[in-house]
Amino acid sequence: MRALVYLGSGAITVEDRPKPTIQSPTDAIVRVTHTGVCGTDLHIIQGRVPSCSAGRILGHEGVGIIDALGPGVANLRIGDRVLIGSISACGKCPACRQGMNSHCASGGWLLGNTIDGVQADFVRIPHADFSLHLLHSEIPSPAAVALSDAFPTAYEGGIQNGQVHPGAAVAIVGTGPVGLSALMLTRALYPSAFVVVIGRGESRLRIAKSFGAQHIFSTLNGISSTIEAAKAINKGRGFDVVVEAVGTRQSFDLAQQLTGVGGTIATLSYFNSKCDLHLDTLWNKNICLRTRLTDGGSIPELLRLTESSTIDPGALVSHVFSFSDIMKGYETFQAASAQDALKVVIYL
Amino acid sequence: MRALVYLGSGAITVEDRPKPTIQSPTDAIVRVTHTGVCGTDLHIIQGRVPSCSAGRILGHEGVGIIDALGPGVANLRIGDRVLIGSISACGKCPACRQGMNSHCASGGWLLGNTIDGVQADFVRIPHADFSLHLLHSEIPSPAAVALSDAFPTAYEGGIQNGQVHPGAAVAIVGTGPVGLSALMLTRALYPSAFVVVIGRGESRLRIAKSFGAQHIFSTLNGISSTIEAAKAINKGRGFDVVVEAVGTRQSFDLAQQLTGVGGTIATLSYFNSKCDLHLDTLWNKNICLRTRLTDGGSIPELLRLTESSTIDPGALVSHVFSFSDIMKGYETFQAASAQDALKVVIYL
Amino acid sequence: MRALVYLGSGAITVEDRPKPTIQSPTDAIVRVTHTGVCGTDLHIIQGRVPSCSAGRILGHEGVGIIDALGPGVANLRIGDRVLIGSISACGKCPACRQGMNSHCASGGWLLGNTIDGVQADFVRIPHADFSLHLLHSEIPSPAAVALSDAFPTAYEGGIQNGQVHPGAAVAIVGTGPVGLSALMLTRALYPSAFVVVIGRGESRLRIAKSFGAQHIFSTLNGISSTIEAAKAINKGRGFDVVVEAVGTRQSFDLAQQLTGVGGTIATLSYFNSKCDLHLDTLWNKNICLRTRLTDGGSIPELLRLTESSTIDPGALVSHVFSFSDIMKGYETFQAASAQDALKVVIYL
Amino acid sequence: MRALVYLGSGAITVEDRPKPTIQSPTDAIVRVTHTGVCGTDLHIIQGRVPSCSAGRILGHEGVGIIDALGPGVANLRIGDRVLIGSISACGKCPACRQGMNSHCASGGWLLGNTIDGVQADFVRIPHADFSLHLLHSEIPSPAAVALSDAFPTAYEGGIQNGQVHPGAAVAIVGTGPVGLSALMLTRALYPSAFVVVIGRGESRLRIAKSFGAQHIFSTLNGISSTIEAAKAINKGRGFDVVVEAVGTRQSFDLAQQLTGVGGTIATLSYFNSKCDLHLDTLWNKNICLRTRLTDGGSIPELLRLTESSTIDPGALVSHVFSFSDIMKGYETFQAASAQDALKVVIYL
Repeated sequence: MRALVYLGSGAITVEDRPKPTIQSPTDAIVRVTHTGVCGTDLHIIQGRVPSCSAGRILGHEGVGIIDALGPGVANLRIGDRVLIGSISACGKCPACRQGMNSHCASGGWLLGNTIDGVQADFVRIPHADFSLHLLHSEIPSPAAVALSDAFPTAYEGGIQNGQVHPGAAVAIVGTGPVGLSALMLTRALYPSAFVVVIGRGESRLRIAKSFGAQHIFSTLNGISSTIEAAKAINKGRGFDVVVEAVGTRQSFDLAQQLTGVGGTIATLSYFNSKCDLHLDTLWNKNICLRTRLTDGGSIPELLRLTESSTIDPGALVSHVFSFSDIMKGYETFQAASAQDALKVVIYL
Repeated sequence: MRALVYLGSGAITVEDRPKPTIQSPTDAIVRVTHTGVCGTDLHIIQGRVPSCSAGRILGHEGVGIIDALGPGVANLRIGDRVLIGSISACGKCPACRQGMNSHCASGGWLLGNTIDGVQADFVRIPHADFSLHLLHSEIPSPAAVALSDAFPTAYEGGIQNGQVHPGAAVAIVGTGPVGLSALMLTRALYPSAFVVVIGRGESRLRIAKSFGAQHIFSTLNGISSTIEAAKAINKGRGFDVVVEAVGTRQSFDLAQQLTGVGGTIATLSYFNSKCDLHLDTLWNKNICLRTRLTDGGSIPELLRLTESSTIDPGALVSHVFSFSDIMKGYETFQAASAQDALKVVIYL
Repeated sequence: MRALVYLGSGAITVEDRPKPTIQSPTDAIVRVTHTGVCGTDLHIIQGRVPSCSAGRILGHEGVGIIDALGPGVANLRIGDRVLIGSISACGKCPACRQGMNSHCASGGWLLGNTIDGVQADFVRIPHADFSLHLLHSEIPSPAAVALSDAFPTAYEGGIQNGQVHPGAAVAIVGTGPVGLSALMLTRALYPSAFVVVIGRGESRLRIAKSFGAQHIFSTLNGISSTIEAAKAINKGRGFDVVVEAVGTRQSFDLAQQLTGVGGTIATLSYFNSKCDLHLDTLWNKNICLRTRLTDGGSIPELLRLTESSTIDPGALVSHVFSFSDIMKGYETFQAASAQDALKVVIYL
Repeated sequence: MRALVYLGSGAITVEDRPKPTIQSPTDAIVRVTHTGVCGTDLHIIQGRVPSCSAGRILGHEGVGIIDALGPGVANLRIGDRVLIGSISACGKCPACRQGMNSHCASGGWLLGNTIDGVQADFVRIPHADFSLHLLHSEIPSPAAVALSDAFPTAYEGGIQNGQVHPGAAVAIVGTGPVGLSALMLTRALYPSAFVVVIGRGESRLRIAKSFGAQHIFSTLNGISSTIEAAKAINKGRGFDVVVEAVGTRQSFDLAQQLTGVGGTIATLSYFNSKCDLHLDTLWNKNICLRTRLTDGGSIPELLRLTESSTIDPGALVSHVFSFSDIMKGYETFQAASAQDALKVVIYL
């Protein structure tokens, strides 16, 4: 079968690989019909994710058709169209019972990381019953790809962890697919909340505006003036919720300065360095900071919200390529700003 | 009247000052019978609290007798014995209605900071109805002094913010009065929780042991071996709750390393510098970090717990001096480790 | 001054009464400009509220101008336009500190019940600082009257107590002002929730439809077919939240039958008899039932939601009368169905 | 194999039955070593549980050794000693993902109800991975039997649903195994809470006293004087938490009268009739009422609390019989009061 393989040292290629087989009774083999390229895939290629070795088939987002099932899979049938969650989890271990599927004793972020991933004609999915989600006919597959990882990350790490609530003043730092998903979810679920989006490029900020952001600011106009202007909208008080969706020392600094007394910083980003935490100003501000790797537990709810047209994950899909053009898909996503790329979907 | 006054530049003295008078209808004048010396008073003397100017009467902990009442005070009578909360709050503004009395629009930490404090024969208490607490006869005044600030800080900033719960694995970093209060509260309220205390000096750690800590560790034996040994007790998993009660870059680093997946860091310390936050290791650990200035909202509950002998705040009082010896009281507290001092109480 | 007085035995009249005066330092005297007639006023007239004696000036909803202030009132000025909360509370007693202002040790539902009320030219308001709310200019007074009692009852007793959340299946039983307020709040704050309204008369149900109810049902078509039809919309599963806003044995029975596994029944009604609780079918359904007298703690938030045009309490006002026509106002409200009356407002 | 079979019409007998076999890949066959008799078994025999037909092997409590495993069971090995939860659940369906395992789409209370149960030499356990719990060597099997159903019912339905918290005033109505488990859990986890137990017979009440109840009352001394005396202990205020563990109209009436303003009634009983709910007195008391069939989700935590000696479920075991004497075991439990019987355990 065809597969997009990480070669190490910044390189990827398309290779021919053997089709995977059932290894454990709870496995499923899925024939992939659609897969997505995620910012984390770029981190891997840049060599910043040590858990992922050269030779790995990449990808943790996708939609496909059940091709084979282990004898222990109870809730799926061959031929079912399914959403592949980015996290594979058993649902039974202590971590899973606490809702932290990403820390499953025999699961977690495996696909395209420690086992072969979804950017291939077929993929083996461990713990299939808990990690795959039946798709109803009304959800188009390219849209569903955004529910593998981007939307659950935004929902669990941003909306839930940030404790977004009616009437909240919300600042979202970052205009990538996850930041924009957090924006879409906030607007759809809590329209009485007030959302400011802070990014860089004009193009993404215009998209944020079209997704319903009440105010947009570019840090290209200066950090301190951006902070001042953003806080002015909320009478200088700072924000109840700040969703940090970039993952740099600068963006984390910005998030802290935007947070009001009693506010929450929800960071849903991968960081590859430590950051400054300004406890000398925050120690008495009653603030809360939360980190989270997506657990995928919200996928059933996100599917319902999609079915009821409350959210449209398809709006995140900016480009669709055939698998034969997957290298072009990667190039497009690597130049996301210049290409106005959000979620890049590959069909097989 | 007699008063302990901050002179700036590291100096304090006892001066004669005029007795305070009612300035607002909701004020009370309290004749102080007992007051405490707090670590924050030392921070002021060291010039690290810019909001407190030279000439200020210090002190935000105390017990006394109502001497005079403004016409707007409804729930107190002259002659009542009262506990003076360290936070003065109106109870009506938006911050107070959210339980953040420390951020009261016309209150907060005023006493011994932005208005004259409790280390004097008399003190004016703004918002008396909400900021003073009637004392039942069974609570001795020296013990009650520990309920002005140390215990509410430990309870609100450590137990509540840390989400201590039955069966939790709890690490307390720091063996000052607040750290030990957090220990006492955890042991009394959640005996099924498991508490490790990490400090420096042997003497304080012995006290922690006598207060019920299941395990004690001294960082004098090396940071990394301390972390390893502490985590070994909980099977290497890290702690559910880490209460950070020191307020330095080192202690905050230690707190992060002790925290397990899904854990909470509750810091209840004053910090005078920024710290490192190791997001490169914490970003995917589903952790929560909370800061808080005590709000005092827990004082009524702490009084009930004292009345029912669930906690004994008097155990925190290591030294009692007459006001004529208050300078000696300060000296004792400044050399706390050498003097085995915890809470130093002054009577008038 | 003019006043609407309960005479006992089903009778009310307009009398001349002396203007009230400050009795306690925390009192305010308010010159009433607008007041409302509430279903509870009708209960009083029918003799079903024993706490309210003959001779009482009725009314617990209103807007007015501060005319006089006791010396203990800190946050209001003479001339301020204020909303009068139906609950008067000190904000300091144990019940108030738990957010149960309706059980305030020196307050609660006093106005038009145990002390003279708002349907008069002037009214004395105890605990003015905590019980009156400054009105910003953009909120019209007739609309604000609906924020005294109807909206906080719906919000606290229905939305909060019912734990309405994004995507919830919500059934509202009752189409009076409080039921319709609960509908408006659910639609405005949680548009992804799904709301079924069950009432009797066509006219009110049409209003419910215009306020955004996705489905409406009249029990005039038969109780069991109504239940079946309502549950069919949610695939027969029963509702996550049932807001009971009628207050009869029949409506409470209906509420129970609509509730799904894990669901919540939030009743915000006055009941004058015991009801059947069908524990033989509910014992294993993991349900939750909550009762509540409004506490008014949500009024500041409701004011913000009104200022931001998230909700329009004015939509509840169906009739406005001059005080000289107050008897006609009562007649209109007593024949609410025939008159298509919702909230009846009286101006002075 | 030997099996205790329900014959209908009030009769049970021991029969020879074929050994069960794996029917689904996620099944396990367990060789039962210990089983318990539960009050619900008596309800079945009395014909009050329509879901259980004649011919059924009874029993939903037990400990045993894994004898055979379906190919889809991942976490267990043949020969493992396991606790059998009373609820069998898949862990993956919508109900399970909400923590309502008792409402599992392909599970729930099956054992000894809709499929053959545990009072036999062997039992088939569906969804074995999620429904069986590995036992560490230090927990004796007879004690563990009390963790199948009695303790999780008390913990989930009483402690969690009742929101027991430090310092709470708790009343427990009923002195059966579940009521006494709720008592033991409250005392062990929240010793600062204050517990009153209300029962009938002196013997059980003495046991309650020995389990740590601060006060005990017998309703044989009159209902209204019992209520008055119980409330007097809490200054007449009523209780924060009332755990109803009897399941009759009388006990539910009593529970309502004991509940204070803002209190919670947690009922964990089976009811076979509707009850009166006194909304005419409760409508404005801000109360909460919760029902629940045990879900078993707390079993891992209860095992940890047993391993750490925080609770001793063995204290609930009053009688142990050989399976050859199981009829005598039933007789003993049916005459529980006369026999001072709590949990009756059968070994095989």
